[in-house]
Amino acid sequence: MGPLPRTLDFFYDVLSPYSWLAFEVLCRYKNIWNVSLQLRPTLIAGIMKDSGNQPPAMLPRKATYLKNDIRLLGQHLQVPIHFPKDFFSVILGKGSLTAMRFLTALKMEQPEMLEKVSRELWMRVWSRDEDITQPQSILAAAEKAGMSTGQVRGLLERISTPQVKDQLRETTEAACKYGAFGLPVTVAHLDDQAHMLFGSDRMELLAHLLGEKWMGPVPPAVNARL
Amino acid sequence: MGPLPRTLDFFYDVLSPYSWLAFEVLCRYKNIWNVSLQLRPTLIAGIMKDSGNQPPAMLPRKATYLKNDIRLLGQHLQVPIHFPKDFFSVILGKGSLTAMRFLTALKMEQPEMLEKVSRELWMRVWSRDEDITQPQSILAAAEKAGMSTGQVRGLLERISTPQVKDQLRETTEAACKYGAFGLPVTVAHLDDQAHMLFGSDRMELLAHLLGEKWMGPVPPAVNARL
Repeated sequence: MGPLPRTLDFFYDVLSPYSWLAFEVLCRYKNIWNVSLQLRPTLIAGIMKDSGNQPPAMLPRKATYLKNDIRLLGQHLQVPIHFPKDFFSVILGKGSLTAMRFLTALKMEQPEMLEKVSRELWMRVWSRDEDITQPQSILAAAEKAGMSTGQVRGLLERISTPQVKDQLRETTEAACKYGAFGLPVTVAHLDDQAHMLFGSDRMELLAHLLGEKWMGPVPPAVNARL
Repeated sequence: MGPLPRTLDFFYDVLSPYSWLAFEVLCRYKNIWNVSLQLRPTLIAGIMKDSGNQPPAMLPRKATYLKNDIRLLGQHLQVPIHFPKDFFSVILGKGSLTAMRFLTALKMEQPEMLEKVSRELWMRVWSRDEDITQPQSILAAAEKAGMSTGQVRGLLERISTPQVKDQLRETTEAACKYGAFGLPVTVAHLDDQAHMLFGSDRMELLAHLLGEKWMGPVPPAVNARL
């Protein structure tokens, strides 16, 4: 028996484009590195409020940079990410509360579906510029991920229960306790301590901390399948 | 004769720790990749003012993260970077005007010394927690880099001339025109367009854009010399 896998807590919100980029890279490496990847749906609005931070796109020059940065990173990382046409209304206006409550309920009841449904929600909002706030939008994403209509409707009925609301709040608070001021946040639990890494651009550093090999954002084992 | 090297404009300030990290990585790769690295001393205070941005350390949770991030990156990148004890007074209070004017004058008169003197200034402020605002501090850094006392004194006498002031202002404005809202900024001039990359964590993306190979922050040719 080899050494026990190290736990990686990955705090994310489907509203956050850099969360998607980091998510795909970690999903590629989770079977290559000796890690146990824990996906933790989090509310980015809660993180911003608690930390006093502002979304980077509030500064005009950062917004311009962000657009180009995400386009280039999407190409490099081979993630089909595209900016929504009306960024401010879609991302800063509508928010992600329903979607993140749904993912929270999903994690509680069918955690094996969490990766696929999260990806389909990102595909909607950050690739095809489609809504993720309405129940029928969430239904469409979850069905695309392989869930039945009945399963999805059952979960949608429970997203406003205290259990689900409390769980999303607790996860968001947990991220804040690790020092989050935005998302994504990856917490690597090593023998001696927990390291909190912010953003999608600390993956090579994460490999270094884990003592694992970094083979670029598209490691060969994944490349062979593309 | 091979293809002409692509120009990389590197805008930096010795007050900026991420500028140092990016600088060392680029100095390692400049003889490995087919590039011409242009070091461009810039005033970070001017960039912040023009863009309306705030230093990240102004947000308490970002300041805490920054400290740990820089420590981990310093280990990973093999750069002896350490946080000054009184960060706010040293970095946000004292500033870097004299140092950046000195580097501007140096670039105009002895550009071959720019890399070494810049590194010695970073070694002072970001490794040994020493002053970089006083003429004798700059003299010590420049002498350590191999310049004579006479050369340094001559340059120090000219750092307040309109030529030097204007040049630093022009470089800072040039970075702003590329969309800078902080430093470092690396501008890669490719055949078809210029790509502006912010920070020290876009080096693998830079390699991708250049069609060059990324071999980690400490490429083997450098490793062999360490």
